[in-house]
Amino acid sequence: MVHNHLRAHRTVLLGKIFRKMAAGGIDSLFVTDLATIRWLTGFSGSSARLLLAGGSAVLFTDFRYQEQVRSETSGIETVILKERVGVILSSGSWPLGACMAMQADHITWDEMQQLSVALGNREFLAVSSFFDEFRELKHLAEIEKMRHAVEISETVLEEVIAMISPDVTEIDIASEISYRHRNLGAEKDSFDPIVAGGIRSAMPHARPTASKLEPGTLIVIDMGCVVEGYASDQTRTVALGNIPEEARRVYRTVQQAQQLGLDAARAGMTARELDAEVRSFIALEGYGEAFGHGLGHGVGIEVHEAPRVGTASIGTLHEGMVFTIEPGIYLAGRFGVRIEDMVLLGPGGAEPFQQFTKELIEL
Amino acid sequence: MVHNHLRAHRTVLLGKIFRKMAAGGIDSLFVTDLATIRWLTGFSGSSARLLLAGGSAVLFTDFRYQEQVRSETSGIETVILKERVGVILSSGSWPLGACMAMQADHITWDEMQQLSVALGNREFLAVSSFFDEFRELKHLAEIEKMRHAVEISETVLEEVIAMISPDVTEIDIASEISYRHRNLGAEKDSFDPIVAGGIRSAMPHARPTASKLEPGTLIVIDMGCVVEGYASDQTRTVALGNIPEEARRVYRTVQQAQQLGLDAARAGMTARELDAEVRSFIALEGYGEAFGHGLGHGVGIEVHEAPRVGTASIGTLHEGMVFTIEPGIYLAGRFGVRIEDMVLLGPGGAEPFQQFTKELIEL
Repeated sequence: MVHNHLRAHRTVLLGKIFRKMAAGGIDSLFVTDLATIRWLTGFSGSSARLLLAGGSAVLFTDFRYQEQVRSETSGIETVILKERVGVILSSGSWPLGACMAMQADHITWDEMQQLSVALGNREFLAVSSFFDEFRELKHLAEIEKMRHAVEISETVLEEVIAMISPDVTEIDIASEISYRHRNLGAEKDSFDPIVAGGIRSAMPHARPTASKLEPGTLIVIDMGCVVEGYASDQTRTVALGNIPEEARRVYRTVQQAQQLGLDAARAGMTARELDAEVRSFIALEGYGEAFGHGLGHGVGIEVHEAPRVGTASIGTLHEGMVFTIEPGIYLAGRFGVRIEDMVLLGPGGAEPFQQFTKELIEL
Repeated sequence: MVHNHLRAHRTVLLGKIFRKMAAGGIDSLFVTDLATIRWLTGFSGSSARLLLAGGSAVLFTDFRYQEQVRSETSGIETVILKERVGVILSSGSWPLGACMAMQADHITWDEMQQLSVALGNREFLAVSSFFDEFRELKHLAEIEKMRHAVEISETVLEEVIAMISPDVTEIDIASEISYRHRNLGAEKDSFDPIVAGGIRSAMPHARPTASKLEPGTLIVIDMGCVVEGYASDQTRTVALGNIPEEARRVYRTVQQAQQLGLDAARAGMTARELDAEVRSFIALEGYGEAFGHGLGHGVGIEVHEAPRVGTASIGTLHEGMVFTIEPGIYLAGRFGVRIEDMVLLGPGGAEPFQQFTKELIEL
């Protein structure tokens, strides 16, 4: 009955959101961020706007989704748009109040201006990251979906590692990952799989190529899938054939750094402190310049969401957060290593979702 | 040597864009739309901003893409960001001039405000759809990529239609489509494939379910893939087993409507006129209310781009445009039919990319 739990949870969330709005003097909030709309209503269509006003939520979508919105949502007023949403909002059907807020980080300048004009050159309050504090604390039903996504993706990882040989290309492996994710029941990949061999392992966001995997090199595999709207994310780096001693040393360094991240994570510390612990270890090992991205990021309805765990993070880590711990060392033109788990922050620290070995697999 | 042609073409385009800017009194333009950046520079990373100023283009990206940006672009100044782009822009390294424009339809209110503050509370000119008039006229090298994408997707359609039976689910078919697209050399799907059987065929944007395909119903298959950054898009509706007479009649109506669209398209007419010809035919046949979306949309580096062909379109159709013609009739709770080709508008009218039969396939 996970579904009913989530429905009840959404009602609780809506209450908290209205209280936060009231505390900030916000009478109505226009939600333009599709991920937040899906999180709060269950509706997954690509055309959606949500008005929070007068203690109620109103969902706007268009003709194409009139069937889907009925099957995915319940207890929420829904309007199928036949004209621009600004025209509907100006009708006076809902109490916008004196202070109407917009998600400044999720609305285009254009849409904001058009709404302003439609509402009589109204000025809006700009809010950013308004829902992060709610979205980053996961409900058990959300965690279960992510566990399921991780389970699928770990099975697929095992299967595709068995396929690695000098006869297959990066694209072959990436294509198998996507196919097997879906065949095991995932909605889709949570992002295009990264399969990066040889010098491309040094590109943190490499796109798979038609190059065959080269013996004597490392291969970074970064992958995840979506189950009932919730994402997973994981990375392993494996060796094909005999790799140079320095590659082994770098692998061990990343492996130790990642374990350090798992061990150090505690509710109450700042995200920046956690990043700094791992970063300073890598720097001491002499690879500080080669770890150019943040330690991790939240995962949920989006594969990248709050909290960010990096050098510029400002927030504190709390129990119930789900985020990745994924240090990497990238030596341009040579090779790279990244190891990534998703963790749930619990009372005893970080509980990894992934069980997959982090010892170097040599094929 | 398509690559070199496209590179030369990009130089020509940049010249035209600077002339349009000059004509509009725009000294510099900050480009935030990733598809436009890819179209104009070749760079496909997910973190990119482009400044057009003083007759030159400057591309900004981050650490993760420093290798990729080198391999994908040429002849363009590139900056790897170590701080916020606003800080770099305020350094005076590039001549922003008196009038700096922003893509209001592709920048968040937040980013615009942050840039404004970074540049001393500067006010920007808002421009929208600025690049459409250039992007919608396709170069031969772009058309060739789309032909290749269509070729792949037609092969895959033939293969998956052969797999349709009461023993497979919508997800099975969708999953095979994605897998086979990649195996035949596509980068990826251009959108999540739609495989909608039974009453779900009446949902224009249905998501594939784990339901087995039901005998005696129609199945809408809407799919496309990406080759070297360029998309394809096509829809066919097939029958599994014996379908009701009304479903046949609706199929014939959509087939005739689609052919009417192909025959009527001419350079010089407005997009709205083309939509209206097909729409009024469907209305005369008694299904006017059941065709709730536009007739078509441009296809290129995005699977939905200019020109839009619908009731609210304002533009004129020109030679060199590539767009879809995809009428549909959707009877909620019962069934739906959509047939879609991509066409290139040439001197003699619409030249379809797809060759796949539009006669009703009965399985």
